[in-house]
Amino acid sequence: MPNGRVVVIGGGPAGIAAARTAAEFGVDVVIVERLAYLGGRPIEENYASLTPYLRSAEEAIGEMVSPLLAMSNVSVRYESKVISCTGEKGDFSIVIEHRGEQESLSAASIVVATGFSHFDPGRETQMYGYYEFDDVIALQDLEAMLKSGQVVRPSNGEAPKRVCFVQCVGSRDRQIGNEYCSKVCCGVASKEAIEVRLAVPGVEVFIFYIDMRMYGYWESQIYWPAQEKHHVQYVKGIITEVLPKDGRLLVRGEDTTMGRPMEVPMDLVVLSVGMEPSEGTRAMAGVLGIAQNKYGFIEAVNPPLDTVSTSRPGIFAVGSALGPADLEDCVSTGGFAGAKAASISLAGVGV
Amino acid sequence: MPNGRVVVIGGGPAGIAAARTAAEFGVDVVIVERLAYLGGRPIEENYASLTPYLRSAEEAIGEMVSPLLAMSNVSVRYESKVISCTGEKGDFSIVIEHRGEQESLSAASIVVATGFSHFDPGRETQMYGYYEFDDVIALQDLEAMLKSGQVVRPSNGEAPKRVCFVQCVGSRDRQIGNEYCSKVCCGVASKEAIEVRLAVPGVEVFIFYIDMRMYGYWESQIYWPAQEKHHVQYVKGIITEVLPKDGRLLVRGEDTTMGRPMEVPMDLVVLSVGMEPSEGTRAMAGVLGIAQNKYGFIEAVNPPLDTVSTSRPGIFAVGSALGPADLEDCVSTGGFAGAKAASISLAGVGV
Repeated sequence: MPNGRVVVIGGGPAGIAAARTAAEFGVDVVIVERLAYLGGRPIEENYASLTPYLRSAEEAIGEMVSPLLAMSNVSVRYESKVISCTGEKGDFSIVIEHRGEQESLSAASIVVATGFSHFDPGRETQMYGYYEFDDVIALQDLEAMLKSGQVVRPSNGEAPKRVCFVQCVGSRDRQIGNEYCSKVCCGVASKEAIEVRLAVPGVEVFIFYIDMRMYGYWESQIYWPAQEKHHVQYVKGIITEVLPKDGRLLVRGEDTTMGRPMEVPMDLVVLSVGMEPSEGTRAMAGVLGIAQNKYGFIEAVNPPLDTVSTSRPGIFAVGSALGPADLEDCVSTGGFAGAKAASISLAGVGV
Repeated sequence: MPNGRVVVIGGGPAGIAAARTAAEFGVDVVIVERLAYLGGRPIEENYASLTPYLRSAEEAIGEMVSPLLAMSNVSVRYESKVISCTGEKGDFSIVIEHRGEQESLSAASIVVATGFSHFDPGRETQMYGYYEFDDVIALQDLEAMLKSGQVVRPSNGEAPKRVCFVQCVGSRDRQIGNEYCSKVCCGVASKEAIEVRLAVPGVEVFIFYIDMRMYGYWESQIYWPAQEKHHVQYVKGIITEVLPKDGRLLVRGEDTTMGRPMEVPMDLVVLSVGMEPSEGTRAMAGVLGIAQNKYGFIEAVNPPLDTVSTSRPGIFAVGSALGPADLEDCVSTGGFAGAKAASISLAGVGV
């Protein structure tokens, strides 16, 4: 009889959804988490709020975590990582490491929820100066500022008068090898733009974009209010360079709608960095022996009709371990994979 | 003890995923389908192929349907609809009607997978002439043509020399009340544009768009090959009018990149119509007493963290019954809801 345990690697929103769904069937679930807490990127990187409703990330993610931890058949190995995996669907043997100590776990199935990391703007071939200029920051840096309640220029602690977002940094870019669109940056930048307008009286906020990809309800939930209610200024254009000038930043590029070069002074430049596979996603692909796509994300074997099965039977991948994903994607793929994992466990116990 | 049955209303991709996932747990599943077959819109409207891999829709959907129908605990009521529902989570009583005859079914939980319908271009306030001119068609009309292997001008049966797609017909439009983006039309139009280029030697193909929303992998899977390999011509512009002229169609609007009016002759104009709630989605919201959003789609009660629960406990909604959705969304939400439904059934039998 196969062991009924489901092992979920990674405790962000997708992993939480997978664990919760599997646990609802009475299956034993162990979450292996590299940090000392659950919640994933939104908690680790101090997100202020979530798209599309600007709800506190801490509060919303807390509502996912608390009921999960209250379940008697769910346990978490914090500050741990999976270092080996043998066996097959229904009968895996996993070794995890926690502060140098090893533990063996059997598992009927495995869910990989190891997520993404933010593109490192130091790898950008264009001259945005993330590491050179204090007032050039990234989406997640602004999240942390918004959460702290202090939106200021890091260089001098003063409130910015003009803020801009530069879209598609590390996405849609053949030169750096990230040909995909990261899906959520248009929505996240627009959400943060609204929050900056609310936080800093009189601030002007610009978003330089190629296409605004506010798919589905984000169009009316975020994009329209950003323009009509909060007066965020969207400019279709390509930014090629950010330079220091007279204590501010000079943003250079082309306004593609007006068909002319542009040079605009800004106090704070926010790079809308895309998603890349996290270190954990890359590492787990190797440890578990599951196929990756050319970008390093885990490859689903039969999309669009099976969104979560990997190349190794009994192992599923969810959320942004599979590629660019919004929160809804994470929760839905997480729940779907949690069900598939649980059904393997229960197949051995008569259901 | 609650009855373990799960009733899935609608047998398209989302409903199939829900039914399959629930059935994997050994729960009895009944699918109530208004048509005489499963498969949903892709089959009913003769889609040629699916995004993003251009795989035959009939073949791919067939691979979802066949294993489902082979499961001994799954049955389908074809040409049927739900006419009433009483009771509560774990103990619903449903009445369905099939050719005038009624049947009562008990259910522990219900999944609403009643999907979308294509926007009717006759409701469009701009002058696109869908009902006036034979050579103005919609995305799904072109799918059926592509499936038949004959891409021709309906007016004279000849191969078109110039074809264009007009994006956002019935989407992103406050005047008609559809403020949302329909999410998939950019990808579907681009896929069809590639197929037209492959089907008709020498044809020129244009896509008039506001933003190309090729999120995630669609960017590199569809958008780049459409431009680089298949030479589809993307023009950022607003089309305001389609008129007959000299046996062809004159497409009028503004090229917003060039900042000038445009008037281009076309042989075939394809309207990229958006998604609206299907008649079944609107009807089921009423029969089941579940909340709808202002557009008539079923409202999820706690997104983004719960993507499928409705305002009535024990009833879930999936796929495009919830709003604009791609196939991956349909399958993932379907699977997630199938799990939630099955866990209600099993809660009564000791798991």
